[in-house]
Amino acid sequence: MSEQIKVVLTEDDLPKQWYNLAADFATPMAPPVDPEGNPIGPEALAPVFPMNLIEQEVCTDRWVDIPDEILGYYKIWRPTPLYRARRLEKALGTPAKIYYKNEGVSPAGSHKPNTAIPQAWYNKQFGIKKLTTETGAGQWGSALSFACALVGGIECKVFMVRISFDQKPFRKIMMNTWGGICVPSPSMETEVGRKILAEDPDTPGSLGIAISEAIEQCVQAEDTRYSLGSVLNHVMLHQTIIGQEAQKQMQMIGDNPDVVIGCAGGGSNFAGLAFPYINERMHGKEIRIIASEPEACPTLTQAKFRYDSGDIAMMTPLLPMHSLGHTFVPPPLHAGGLRYHGMAPMVSHAMNEGHIEATAIPQTECYEAAVQFARTEGFISAPETSHAIAATIREAKRATEEGKEKTILMNWSGHGLMDLKGYESYFNGNMEDYPLPDELLEKSAASMDGLPMP
Amino acid sequence: MSEQIKVVLTEDDLPKQWYNLAADFATPMAPPVDPEGNPIGPEALAPVFPMNLIEQEVCTDRWVDIPDEILGYYKIWRPTPLYRARRLEKALGTPAKIYYKNEGVSPAGSHKPNTAIPQAWYNKQFGIKKLTTETGAGQWGSALSFACALVGGIECKVFMVRISFDQKPFRKIMMNTWGGICVPSPSMETEVGRKILAEDPDTPGSLGIAISEAIEQCVQAEDTRYSLGSVLNHVMLHQTIIGQEAQKQMQMIGDNPDVVIGCAGGGSNFAGLAFPYINERMHGKEIRIIASEPEACPTLTQAKFRYDSGDIAMMTPLLPMHSLGHTFVPPPLHAGGLRYHGMAPMVSHAMNEGHIEATAIPQTECYEAAVQFARTEGFISAPETSHAIAATIREAKRATEEGKEKTILMNWSGHGLMDLKGYESYFNGNMEDYPLPDELLEKSAASMDGLPMP
Repeated sequence: MSEQIKVVLTEDDLPKQWYNLAADFATPMAPPVDPEGNPIGPEALAPVFPMNLIEQEVCTDRWVDIPDEILGYYKIWRPTPLYRARRLEKALGTPAKIYYKNEGVSPAGSHKPNTAIPQAWYNKQFGIKKLTTETGAGQWGSALSFACALVGGIECKVFMVRISFDQKPFRKIMMNTWGGICVPSPSMETEVGRKILAEDPDTPGSLGIAISEAIEQCVQAEDTRYSLGSVLNHVMLHQTIIGQEAQKQMQMIGDNPDVVIGCAGGGSNFAGLAFPYINERMHGKEIRIIASEPEACPTLTQAKFRYDSGDIAMMTPLLPMHSLGHTFVPPPLHAGGLRYHGMAPMVSHAMNEGHIEATAIPQTECYEAAVQFARTEGFISAPETSHAIAATIREAKRATEEGKEKTILMNWSGHGLMDLKGYESYFNGNMEDYPLPDELLEKSAASMDGLPMP
Repeated sequence: MSEQIKVVLTEDDLPKQWYNLAADFATPMAPPVDPEGNPIGPEALAPVFPMNLIEQEVCTDRWVDIPDEILGYYKIWRPTPLYRARRLEKALGTPAKIYYKNEGVSPAGSHKPNTAIPQAWYNKQFGIKKLTTETGAGQWGSALSFACALVGGIECKVFMVRISFDQKPFRKIMMNTWGGICVPSPSMETEVGRKILAEDPDTPGSLGIAISEAIEQCVQAEDTRYSLGSVLNHVMLHQTIIGQEAQKQMQMIGDNPDVVIGCAGGGSNFAGLAFPYINERMHGKEIRIIASEPEACPTLTQAKFRYDSGDIAMMTPLLPMHSLGHTFVPPPLHAGGLRYHGMAPMVSHAMNEGHIEATAIPQTECYEAAVQFARTEGFISAPETSHAIAATIREAKRATEEGKEKTILMNWSGHGLMDLKGYESYFNGNMEDYPLPDELLEKSAASMDGLPMP
């Protein structure tokens, strides 16, 4: 009889609460502050986010109930299956056991709907009629368009970095199919957009510009709010459903991870799998938890913990986080979702408290890993996800060298069917790795000089 | 508590046998013949297919054991979930209950791997080192590339219709990622390809040309065979795993379909869901079984049952089937997988015996249905699948008019993330419906004059 490779849960097994790691930190997190270092209260965020989500942002309860209606939407693709990567193990000849959580089964193809659905739902509860957001590679814009269509009664407006908009025309159509509106950024719709276009009509745009446009359009209308797909505390909270499901599934298959791995850009999919395991670690389990990031955007491995702005234009409050500096423009990696200068404050705090470690991997090694994964496990990975696979393969090879059994659990955060361009570069042999010169890192870090310290 | 919307099975619930409808027909099917009407024996097919698959092609046993190794590969994505389309029902305001089987969860994104995996496996068992095939839209070429990578030790060579190759560059990269080789057809690699290119260097190619190239390259090498993704009896057999799982799932949820619906091009996904239910029908259950096809390629609704060739160049044996004529070139529908002049002999025979009915739907109505489906159920459908959705919505609306409850079960054969171009045409308002003039149908039907009759 062929061996079991996946563990499925029924809808009844869905976790009924999100897990809030903030309740269990040894030291409290530093609050967001203004440029003078004064803590920013919930009311200052009110023009940008609805109050029910701001309450989650500052919440320190350990468990937060998931509203039943949100569970109803989660059932469209959750619980997601947990896989044992038996064919990859065999190809590697490793004594390690490798498991992965398949978050690619969502309609949008990644873990992003785990927070897009609650964000759309809480905004609707609060009476909001329209959400604005930005997207780089397109995963987040797709997920929020999907969520707004399903929840209903909320318009979704996505500012997509122009160069991505032009390179990935199908992302726009995907958003349109769910009723989302997607405009290339900078656009003529906002003051900041018009200003930038007047100066440079051919600008490729940037995530920083797109955020500025989305926030500008949001604060101008009473019934409009802004939505962010990563970085913030409530986003991390929503994603913890991943790790909680994984805990049940690992229990069902009678195993326990020694190593937990996720890729990290803003930090949300990593946090989603890792935080429930950090809780186990706090209760004495020996687990190594590894965030895998691009060598070309080494936030956790190279950047200091500082107060920094979430965007280039400094429109957001200052957040306590590992940051390369808000002026850092990452090289044109295919993993657009990992091209962010900062790291979620909760992930940064977990790093400071010694619960996680980080590794940085060059792009080519990631694609090599993704191709091996596709040819053994079958699934084609998102460029972001390939960083988790590469880190997993490194750990598995280490197990071989050490001749030690170990159990690795990885978050397979999404499929790459909308992002095959990177695979083409890889096969054509024209993929670059973009190692970063020290002076570049020093220069962008200098943009934080003079900002308050946490 | 939010309502149940999906039924999942565990790997232990996987059906262990394929169901062969050929065992249960009231009258035996007519055999394949040569142009003089002489039956073609298994040995004549030996240069093109391995003998173990030829045996399945002519098999009349009711149940065929699924080898355990194939079950092992099926576990990568099977059993697939069955969904209750509660949100679509609500949007339609219908008393009908709508269920759909989600075959889009396979790594290749459609039901095609259900037969690609066994075809690769049986060829490998037979000592074959290379498979050639053709692909139009790319679903089949992707599925066979995936299957050859997983089964291992078999090279996969895909001749892709040139116009699709140029329009959908990502399909090639998808195949490459699994190690498949994809060349535009006509190519310089075959005699027929070189001849056609010499006459018309700018030809867009056709499925007929691609089949001819794939077969030419196959018969020239001892260790190479040809693989077909639909039409043939053994393909229908492999797909019956869909309907068998659905039967279990419908039982678990305590319901029974009154209507079963699938889209039909060559017939394989339709057969996969329908054949186990035709068996129930033969045992007295009242079930309507509906094949939904494009109005622009109306094989079951408008074509006669005849002997006809499977390809334009008449390289295949003559098959007993509903056929528009092997010279019929369907209009440039987005549903490339439904652009086939013939219909699987088993599906044609089931039609002749009165077990199924057919409906033809214009392209625009299908996209309208697919968009409604995406915005209620969340998943973006393949253009082919949209024909099943449109037929389902018609039935649901009929239930509303008649004020009658009924249970509809539909095969959601695949996602459309690789085929978003059609949605763009739909949103831009430049989608055509291509109604077919009678004289065109008469002309292509005339290409069968003089061929033997079943």
